Amino acid sequence: MAKQTLRIGIAGLGTVGGGLLNLLSERPDFAPAGTTTAITGVSARSRTRARSADISNLPWFDDPVALAISPDNDVFVELIGGAEGPAKAAVEAALKLGKPVVTANKALIAVHGAELAALAEANGAPLLFEAAVMGGTPAVKMLREAMVGDEVEAVAGILNGTCNYILTEMEETGRSFAAVLGEAQDLGYAEADPTTDVGGFDAAHKITILAALAFGCAPNFAAAQVEGIDQVELLDIHLARDLGYRIRLVAQATRSDAGVTVSVHPALAPLGHPLAETKGPLNALFIEGRRIGRIFIQGPGAGAGPTAAAVAADIADIMTGAVRPVFQAPATALKPFAAVDAAHAVGRAYVRLMVKDEPGVIAAVSETLAEAGVSIDSFLQKPVHDAGGVPIVLTTHATPESALLEAIRRIGALPALLQAPKMLRIARI
Amino acid sequence: MAKQTLRIGIAGLGTVGGGLLNLLSERPDFAPAGTTTAITGVSARSRTRARSADISNLPWFDDPVALAISPDNDVFVELIGGAEGPAKAAVEAALKLGKPVVTANKALIAVHGAELAALAEANGAPLLFEAAVMGGTPAVKMLREAMVGDEVEAVAGILNGTCNYILTEMEETGRSFAAVLGEAQDLGYAEADPTTDVGGFDAAHKITILAALAFGCAPNFAAAQVEGIDQVELLDIHLARDLGYRIRLVAQATRSDAGVTVSVHPALAPLGHPLAETKGPLNALFIEGRRIGRIFIQGPGAGAGPTAAAVAADIADIMTGAVRPVFQAPATALKPFAAVDAAHAVGRAYVRLMVKDEPGVIAAVSETLAEAGVSIDSFLQKPVHDAGGVPIVLTTHATPESALLEAIRRIGALPALLQAPKMLRIARI
Repeated sequence: MAKQTLRIGIAGLGTVGGGLLNLLSERPDFAPAGTTTAITGVSARSRTRARSADISNLPWFDDPVALAISPDNDVFVELIGGAEGPAKAAVEAALKLGKPVVTANKALIAVHGAELAALAEANGAPLLFEAAVMGGTPAVKMLREAMVGDEVEAVAGILNGTCNYILTEMEETGRSFAAVLGEAQDLGYAEADPTTDVGGFDAAHKITILAALAFGCAPNFAAAQVEGIDQVELLDIHLARDLGYRIRLVAQATRSDAGVTVSVHPALAPLGHPLAETKGPLNALFIEGRRIGRIFIQGPGAGAGPTAAAVAADIADIMTGAVRPVFQAPATALKPFAAVDAAHAVGRAYVRLMVKDEPGVIAAVSETLAEAGVSIDSFLQKPVHDAGGVPIVLTTHATPESALLEAIRRIGALPALLQAPKMLRIARI
Repeated sequence: MAKQTLRIGIAGLGTVGGGLLNLLSERPDFAPAGTTTAITGVSARSRTRARSADISNLPWFDDPVALAISPDNDVFVELIGGAEGPAKAAVEAALKLGKPVVTANKALIAVHGAELAALAEANGAPLLFEAAVMGGTPAVKMLREAMVGDEVEAVAGILNGTCNYILTEMEETGRSFAAVLGEAQDLGYAEADPTTDVGGFDAAHKITILAALAFGCAPNFAAAQVEGIDQVELLDIHLARDLGYRIRLVAQATRSDAGVTVSVHPALAPLGHPLAETKGPLNALFIEGRRIGRIFIQGPGAGAGPTAAAVAADIADIMTGAVRPVFQAPATALKPFAAVDAAHAVGRAYVRLMVKDEPGVIAAVSETLAEAGVSIDSFLQKPVHDAGGVPIVLTTHATPESALLEAIRRIGALPALLQAPKMLRIARI
């Protein structure tokens, strides 16, 4: 708090950057700890693009790296995005000078978090990224600071608002994935290239970061098991509902003696469960600590206002002069991320088959499951779906995933099968 | 982080103190930021009382003030409790020396928070109290740090686990308040003198602290409007449920141009709403920010493990060297707490009447409400309750509380009334 004004350089003036400019101009009173702020430099791809915020009076930098190393700012805010390229170069340049960095860049932290943490700590510079996960909902601060007295055993939640919006709309309007995605793109809720969101990669970036914070291990995006919602069919949403479940894209990280598992996949959550009841673009997270037990947090996962407020909270944090590890332990002491093979996972599953409407099919399916040691929990056959095919859906008791996948492979080879079996996990929540 | 070992003195060795001793002995690895901890002094009312933790090897202090000022510890942890007496004296003594203080003492902070914040900041000593509100669930950190980039407009939630346990048990087992309270006392869930919990005062301490953090005003416990659950009858729980609500003890703080309102009262939350679905001893909180929108957090509000973990998180925070105001603004700049008169509040209400089973009663009630300008939303008359009396229950549209109270006063004077009308607010959530 030595400086009376904290001078801020902002690179990237999209949704979040524009939101931050507006927040700081709307709040001249923003002076936590008595320190005020001033924006002393901005950088973006285009200087002249139409924006929600006026930048005509702000010093302009064509090169974000030049902004990052400029002595005219005390804090560098990186809102460019992307794991490589100018975002990474600029963040590295600032940290090398010992300059505090605030970023909303989940890909950068998920992929390069360990090396950036080492760089930040070696140079005594805070590296903060509250806005990278759950937007305005403080998941990062909770795990890094509030849970540090406990030992966290699992985190699980809904971390991608676009996917949750799409799944909610599919259920509520009875439209297909493609139709709802198209509308979301038209409304600006989904990107023109939706792969990062609907493929589960955005959620995987976020859960990778949360796993590192929760368990004190180096973030390891490459070890995340990722499956998106692009294969979720309306039929499965309806059948799951008949069984008392709702399909959600669940991002999960658990640790055991064997190591850490980080995964993102569509999964069934029981109706009435807070994850099933998290609708539209909301995000939600369970944190399970050995002593604290379960904490649940729900809030907006994106948007200019919430995300800019999260960036501002990180700026306030820098004003306090706090010196703490970037993740839960100093970068030099981060545990290696020992990924557990998914085949060792044990859980319940939903399996949907489209079969010929002929005798003996259920017998053949049940026998195949029994042979693989998979025990059936519930079985549902719906009235004829369309000419020649009927859907059969079943849920299993807890089963090693390797046994389940083998059973499904064998069922897929049965002559009565009209299409490949569809398997969805039942969330372990 | 200059010191390699942070030396901790702990005064008060009850549930939380014992939990903290156990946590620190179970976690020799507890070294956030690389600093380890050592307990260099303890104090309590009795040295020889049976405890969950072994204190035979720890330096003993008969006087908590002597422990607070001992040069043998770097941090003073106050877990004695109570707004006055030794807790206050010891905290003040430590702060005067510039020694960081961690406390779980909600009464102390709610009543003396402003003067203690001034003392702490004048002496450059952190004063942290995460464990004072919602036990292991980090409400304090969220408001003080995560929401500081935004402007918080309201907080509302369930902050007393004992009351929520009693209300849940009454509904689920059909037993009276007195019966459930007695059992809770036998099980150790409720104190022998339950007034602090069931009278709403514990929740009022907590919401007073949250209001100060949320709005940057001086905590003002005396201005809180407090009503407990001791007058909640099983009949109202059942009638509310018939109308689609569940009764909860709701602690709420809102700010408007007129000032701040802090209140605790039993209120009806719609079934399916997260507050209605918060059951047993859980705590829950909504935070409403101008930019962030709504954040919901739910978790354990008490217990040795969760509360000790919250104290440990505060100890970790001290290790970071962070310098920030105790509340949301420096003590010298805290806004005065401008309490808004409850009569200005506008809201919906549930009104239950026990009336004689005779013609004209509903007409008389409706006319009285109409004359007072109170508009009825729903009306329910149940089959005869017991000899000579029938319960009538109605809900109102939003009404100034002054008009509602006047209408209820007039209804209470009607000759058909067998007992005083019962009014419960419908939560504005």
